[in-house]
Amino acid sequence: MDKGYIQVYTGNGKGKTTAALGISLRCLCAGGKVFFGQFMKGQNYSELKARDYFKNLTMEQFGNPTFIKGEPSKEDYEKARKGFERMKEVLLSGEYDMVVFDEINTTLYFNLLKLEDVLDLLKQKPEKTEVILTGRYAPQEIIDIAVLVTEMKEIKHYYNQGVEARVGIEN
Amino acid sequence: MDKGYIQVYTGNGKGKTTAALGISLRCLCAGGKVFFGQFMKGQNYSELKARDYFKNLTMEQFGNPTFIKGEPSKEDYEKARKGFERMKEVLLSGEYDMVVFDEINTTLYFNLLKLEDVLDLLKQKPEKTEVILTGRYAPQEIIDIAVLVTEMKEIKHYYNQGVEARVGIEN
Repeated sequence: MDKGYIQVYTGNGKGKTTAALGISLRCLCAGGKVFFGQFMKGQNYSELKARDYFKNLTMEQFGNPTFIKGEPSKEDYEKARKGFERMKEVLLSGEYDMVVFDEINTTLYFNLLKLEDVLDLLKQKPEKTEVILTGRYAPQEIIDIAVLVTEMKEIKHYYNQGVEARVGIEN
Repeated sequence: MDKGYIQVYTGNGKGKTTAALGISLRCLCAGGKVFFGQFMKGQNYSELKARDYFKNLTMEQFGNPTFIKGEPSKEDYEKARKGFERMKEVLLSGEYDMVVFDEINTTLYFNLLKLEDVLDLLKQKPEKTEVILTGRYAPQEIIDIAVLVTEMKEIKHYYNQGVEARVGIEN
């Protein structure tokens, strides 16, 4: 792989984690090694099965199976903190061509992690590693350090039209 | 799979084809069968290697290795037309859980296909099949028939910062 950069996928539209999965797939197909860490998620998503197909893919989850409603619990903070420690170890190891911090922006929005800790870690990114940050509400400081930022904007969403999340499509 | 819908990923930002790859990966991981057709593309992208990993994935390209500059050539029209015939066969077969028309919006923008032909085909979509349409400049008529539309909006792009497209990341 060439030199790696920081990419951000944010906004209220669908396709942020999905784009991170797509870019991971592309990297894996090119022979790269990918670590896909999911903050604030603990559900048994279909995408976790991707590990069965690619030996170079590691996926781990650092959240609870249910969404945070209202105030985050002590457990939410604890899981985010542990997840962050794990991501630090992973990123700084230099072993991966691509490291995905899925939902990191949302984690920051809920104050489960400190922005300065995340920024500090990203500054230490190994040169070759591509870093993908997803989640709505990306803070300006995160946008500032990225070289590619895409906002996924919801034009039409089927949840508003009575369609439930479906296995193999959203989950 | 449940009932399928039409999804659109459009806009000038990065992540449209990438999101289509991600949602295909999710569908494949859930045991679904995916056809990924790429209009206006004939390059040897890393993503084509995904076929080596998933027996339920078919990927085909209906374009030239180079981008259209100025007016499309006779060959561009011919390839788009043949691609569309192939996609018609694929979609109407009812064999696939997900059918991706990658860059179809761009193909319509360049008038390589007729909008009415595409709309007519999409109206005949088998009920269970999820259809993914990508490419910038999605026409309003396409947006109207979709239940989920996301606009990828470029906030920052590294091509503007002197970074070239890289294998395993963009290609």
